[in-house]
Amino acid sequence: MTVLVAVKGWDPGHWVDALRARAPGRDVVVAPDVPDPAAVRYALVWKPEPGRLAGYPNLEVIFSLGAGVDHLTSDPALPALPIVRIVDPDLTMRMTEWVVLQVLLHHRKQRLYDRLQAERRWAPQDQVSARGLRVGIMGLGVLGLDAARALAGLGFPVAGWSRTPRTVPGLETFHGRDGLPAFLARTDLLVVLLPLTADTRGLIDAALIDGLAKDGPLGGPVLVNAGRGGLQDEAAIDAALRDGRLAAASLDVFAVEPLPEASPLWGAPNLTITPHVAAESDPVALSAYVMGQIEAYERGEGLANLVDPGLGY
Amino acid sequence: MTVLVAVKGWDPGHWVDALRARAPGRDVVVAPDVPDPAAVRYALVWKPEPGRLAGYPNLEVIFSLGAGVDHLTSDPALPALPIVRIVDPDLTMRMTEWVVLQVLLHHRKQRLYDRLQAERRWAPQDQVSARGLRVGIMGLGVLGLDAARALAGLGFPVAGWSRTPRTVPGLETFHGRDGLPAFLARTDLLVVLLPLTADTRGLIDAALIDGLAKDGPLGGPVLVNAGRGGLQDEAAIDAALRDGRLAAASLDVFAVEPLPEASPLWGAPNLTITPHVAAESDPVALSAYVMGQIEAYERGEGLANLVDPGLGY
Repeated sequence: MTVLVAVKGWDPGHWVDALRARAPGRDVVVAPDVPDPAAVRYALVWKPEPGRLAGYPNLEVIFSLGAGVDHLTSDPALPALPIVRIVDPDLTMRMTEWVVLQVLLHHRKQRLYDRLQAERRWAPQDQVSARGLRVGIMGLGVLGLDAARALAGLGFPVAGWSRTPRTVPGLETFHGRDGLPAFLARTDLLVVLLPLTADTRGLIDAALIDGLAKDGPLGGPVLVNAGRGGLQDEAAIDAALRDGRLAAASLDVFAVEPLPEASPLWGAPNLTITPHVAAESDPVALSAYVMGQIEAYERGEGLANLVDPGLGY
Repeated sequence: MTVLVAVKGWDPGHWVDALRARAPGRDVVVAPDVPDPAAVRYALVWKPEPGRLAGYPNLEVIFSLGAGVDHLTSDPALPALPIVRIVDPDLTMRMTEWVVLQVLLHHRKQRLYDRLQAERRWAPQDQVSARGLRVGIMGLGVLGLDAARALAGLGFPVAGWSRTPRTVPGLETFHGRDGLPAFLARTDLLVVLLPLTADTRGLIDAALIDGLAKDGPLGGPVLVNAGRGGLQDEAAIDAALRDGRLAAASLDVFAVEPLPEASPLWGAPNLTITPHVAAESDPVALSAYVMGQIEAYERGEGLANLVDPGLGY
C-alpha cells in the first residue's frame, strides 16, 4: 500500500514528512527513486513530467495536490485511473483570503493611496461603499462559492457565472455562453475562478474585457484572476491596461510560470502580480485530506471529489 | 424646526443637498450664515470651531457626523445638550472594509510582493493560513464587533479587549488595564477601534507595542489603527517600525491631520498611510439616519445612540 510522491517545482520532503507524520506505518517513496514500482498503490502528484505516472502496474488512485487538474489531464501517457482533486477547507480559505484582499485593494483605491503616500500627499478620495461595486465571479465551484459568500458578507452585490445552470440561495446566477453578455454587462469587477479546460482556454480575451460594465466606480472594469493562466489572453490584458479599457487587474496565474522576466506584464499599469500563491497547498493539511480519503477507500467506501474525465474538472 | 449644518473640512453643500432631498419641507442652514438663530432646533456637526454651537437658544439636539465625538467634547463652550453619535450600517461597513483590507495586506505579504514585482522577481513566499495569525481588536463597540465578525469569518482567531467586561458569543474577550497584558501577549496583529477619551489618549505607546506577541508569522507584531490619532504615540510607532519591534503598521488617523509633510511617518518602513478615509461619512446615508432620528424625536420617541458625557462616547 505504498504511497508515491511525484511533484515538480515543490520540495517533496515536506510532503514525505507530512505523510509519515499522519500515517507512520505506511511506505512513502519519491519519484523517480522507487525501488519497487509494483508496491505503489496511490500517487500524490503536482505537475509531473509527462509519462511520469506510467510504469506502476498496481497504481489505483491519483491525487492531484492543487485545486486544478489541468497539469495532469494534458499528459497523453496518463494511466486511465480515478483522479481525486483537492477540495480542502484550508485551500478554500486561502483562496478566499487572496480574492478578498485583491477586491478590497481595488475597491478602496489602495494603489492610488500608495502613490500619494510616496509623494507625502494627504489627499482623501471619494469612496463608494461596497454596495456600489458590482462583483461578478466566473466559476461556481467550492472556491467561487466561498469567495461569493465572503464578498457578499462585506456588502458587495455579487453575481456568479457557470458553464451549466446553478441555483444558489441569495446569489444572482448566469450560465453558459448565452448568459455571458448579461453577466459581464452588470459586472464592475470580475473574479475568475474557473478550471482550465478545452472550453475555458483563452476565455479572458479582448471581447470579454470589452463586455464588462464601463460605468462602475473605479473608472473602468477591473479583472482578478486566480484560476489558471491558460484562461487568459495576456497580450489582450496588457493592451487593455495600457489603453484604459481595464482600469486595473490582479493576476496570480500566468500562461508561463514563473512569469518570464521579459514579460511586458511586469510593467503594465495598475496591475498587481503575485507568483501563483493565492491558494498554496499546505502539506500538513492536504496530507491529512489525502490519507483520510485513502483510509476510507481501503475500508471499501467511495472516493470523494473525483474528476470527471469528460469535463476535465 | 430648522436644521443647522456646521462642518469643518467638508463641503457643507453635500449635506444640505442630502438633507433637502430627504426632508424637502424643512429649513436647512449652514453655519455661520444663519439669519434666525432662534429657529435652529437641530445641529449636524463635524469638528466645529470651539464656540460655534453657542448662540442658538432653542437648539435641542446635536448630531455628530462621524463615529467619534472627541471633536465635540473638547469644546469648552459646548452647550449641555444631548449628543447623538452616528451608528450607521453604512459607516460600519466602510470601516470593516478598510480593516479587512489592511489585515489581509499584512497577512498575505502583499507589500513584499509589491517590491518583488517592481524588481520583476517571481519569488513565492511561505504563507500561513488565516488560522495562523492571531488578531486582537481593541474596542468592542459596533465597529469593533463588526470587524471581529468579518475577520473571524475569514478564519482568523480573533480576540477583543474593551474597557469594561463584554461577553460576545464566539469571541474571546479581555477587559480593563488588568486584562491588557494577556490580551496583547496572544495578539500577532492589533486592530485599534477605540474612542478617544481621557482614558485612552496615548494608549498605543512603546510599552503597549512591546507587550504584543513576538512569535507570530509576520516577523513581529503588526499595528492597525483606524480609531483616532490621539490614541497613538507617533514617535514610539515610528521608532518601533525603524528598529523592527513592529514588523509593519497601517494608520488611517494621526495626532495632527492632515499629517504634516515633514512628519517622519511618511518615510517609516513597512507603514501604510491612508488619509483618514477608513469610514468616511456619506451625506446621503447619514442624512437619512439623522432625519429618521429627528422624526422619531418629534413624535415623542427617544433618541438612539446618545453619548454618555461621563464616558465621552
